[in-house]
Amino acid sequence: MRIKIGILGYGNLGRGVEAAIKMNDDMKLVAVYTRRSPESLTIRTDGVPVRSVAELEKGTEDIDVLVICGGSATDLPDMTPKFAAMYNVVDSFDTHANIPTHFARVDAAAKGSGKIGVISAGWDPGMFSINRVYANAILPCGQAYTFWGKGVSQGHSDAVRRIEGVKDARQYTIPVEKALDAVRSGSNPELTTREKHTRECFVVAEDGADKAAIENAIKTMPNYFSDYDTTVHFITEEEMKRDHSGLPHGGSVIHSGTTSDGVKHVIEYSLKLDSNPEFTGSVLIACARAAYRMNRDGMAGAKTVLDIAPAYMSSISPKELRAHFL
Amino acid sequence: MRIKIGILGYGNLGRGVEAAIKMNDDMKLVAVYTRRSPESLTIRTDGVPVRSVAELEKGTEDIDVLVICGGSATDLPDMTPKFAAMYNVVDSFDTHANIPTHFARVDAAAKGSGKIGVISAGWDPGMFSINRVYANAILPCGQAYTFWGKGVSQGHSDAVRRIEGVKDARQYTIPVEKALDAVRSGSNPELTTREKHTRECFVVAEDGADKAAIENAIKTMPNYFSDYDTTVHFITEEEMKRDHSGLPHGGSVIHSGTTSDGVKHVIEYSLKLDSNPEFTGSVLIACARAAYRMNRDGMAGAKTVLDIAPAYMSSISPKELRAHFL
Repeated sequence: MRIKIGILGYGNLGRGVEAAIKMNDDMKLVAVYTRRSPESLTIRTDGVPVRSVAELEKGTEDIDVLVICGGSATDLPDMTPKFAAMYNVVDSFDTHANIPTHFARVDAAAKGSGKIGVISAGWDPGMFSINRVYANAILPCGQAYTFWGKGVSQGHSDAVRRIEGVKDARQYTIPVEKALDAVRSGSNPELTTREKHTRECFVVAEDGADKAAIENAIKTMPNYFSDYDTTVHFITEEEMKRDHSGLPHGGSVIHSGTTSDGVKHVIEYSLKLDSNPEFTGSVLIACARAAYRMNRDGMAGAKTVLDIAPAYMSSISPKELRAHFL
Repeated sequence: MRIKIGILGYGNLGRGVEAAIKMNDDMKLVAVYTRRSPESLTIRTDGVPVRSVAELEKGTEDIDVLVICGGSATDLPDMTPKFAAMYNVVDSFDTHANIPTHFARVDAAAKGSGKIGVISAGWDPGMFSINRVYANAILPCGQAYTFWGKGVSQGHSDAVRRIEGVKDARQYTIPVEKALDAVRSGSNPELTTREKHTRECFVVAEDGADKAAIENAIKTMPNYFSDYDTTVHFITEEEMKRDHSGLPHGGSVIHSGTTSDGVKHVIEYSLKLDSNPEFTGSVLIACARAAYRMNRDGMAGAKTVLDIAPAYMSSISPKELRAHFL
């Protein structure tokens, strides 16, 4: 009996979840739900229907877990509590500051329905969070550093695209090697924002646009760029398509700490991802498996990856895990 | 109310656990138990008694968790089930092939007493196991590689010490850089034992010993050395003491896998440890906290790190973890 998965939302992340389901024999995609007109959507899995979100809202769809692939700004704060009142759900809510509020709302809804709502799954928040917590639990006298990249930041790319005269843009976040080396040495350096990451932008300008003005607008943009050393490259549409159509990402959580006088340890978890949405989708699917099983085991309410034992995420039985993975 | 910890066994690992307790405000060491005569032992924590294992066997000691620091060959197979019948316990049982049997025996004892028995905690088995399981759950179409070192292998050092004419020895396991690079590239190479690790031995020979014979005995020793490229250095007792008195270790779990055609991802978890026993002790203490809490939450039976949600290991409250670590 495979676990029946529904996907709500079919952007980059929804397609990443769809790809991940194909890699897992114990799951099947039973429907993709959309706010658009269902017939306007063609998905990549044969024989699976595209249905309207209105069907989902009836609460009667035959799915074990709904993976909600919406945006954290406006979609998930409404969608996740709403559907946690009907189904086991998983989301990738990533507005760190609002996680406590989102958790409380999903928890109330999921406790009411007796379902599980896993929030903030992915790699950060997600696998990076898990590693920050384990490292702190093992080496409480220590410090963790999180580096992102090299990879495409969608938020920063969007910010550049909103500048007048910009036709298209891609922004890469790049960790500074010197900072990585200092942290890996276990010296626990104090690092400013500027010392940790640089930003690199590839921009397609509109015909006749003022490139110097665009470059200045990027480099001085508060929050997004002004605290960083930023380089800007103007390229053609063809170059953008040829060299920057992927969504690679990655990064590292590095924690160093001591256990007695002068005795140091360094723990590092790092990711190199060809596709941010496909990897994130793969984490969501492992969490969907956990949500299904935790609910089957009688649990309900909101959970994060920090509340899920590793064995719950694996398709392999606990007995086999002990024999071959421990 | 701090968690009351007892330590059984006061070798390198027992002292590592003692050091770890000092780093954790929510715990206190209440007694060290020994099979030796208690008055023969001086420990590093003021005001804490050393007691006979005979006291522990009465089952009436006022401890929340007993951390059992014995050897996997003969101590733990008896000790862990015996004391799981009386107390919450944690051990670092690391004979991979015998884990299923050990688990079953501890499970029966702990279910009988209503206590928790965490077995096989440490870094491998332990943190490396957790990372093998997470990576496989996220990227099931992939392959994991475990590399150890650079670090001192106690088992291999002991094996060299048993050779005639050897006064003292230290063996370092060293991962082969070329193999690490190939794995990190995501190419999923086939690697033989010889291609993954080399071994380096530092030996103090007895006066007049046949060094060529010692070197040959090491390099041809089945299981331990014959499948590896091994180098042997003869040094003085002073050099041994000066340069090789620490017990550093570490290693990496590297998993690479795909999520769709040609889309690759690499996950790496690595450790650089100044002291193997102090780091292992720190993992045992985080697991002791989890054992205490899981038992308080009504659970009983044998557990491994794969059955423990990350939040259970942390001294920080789930609410604070969500606000600051997620």
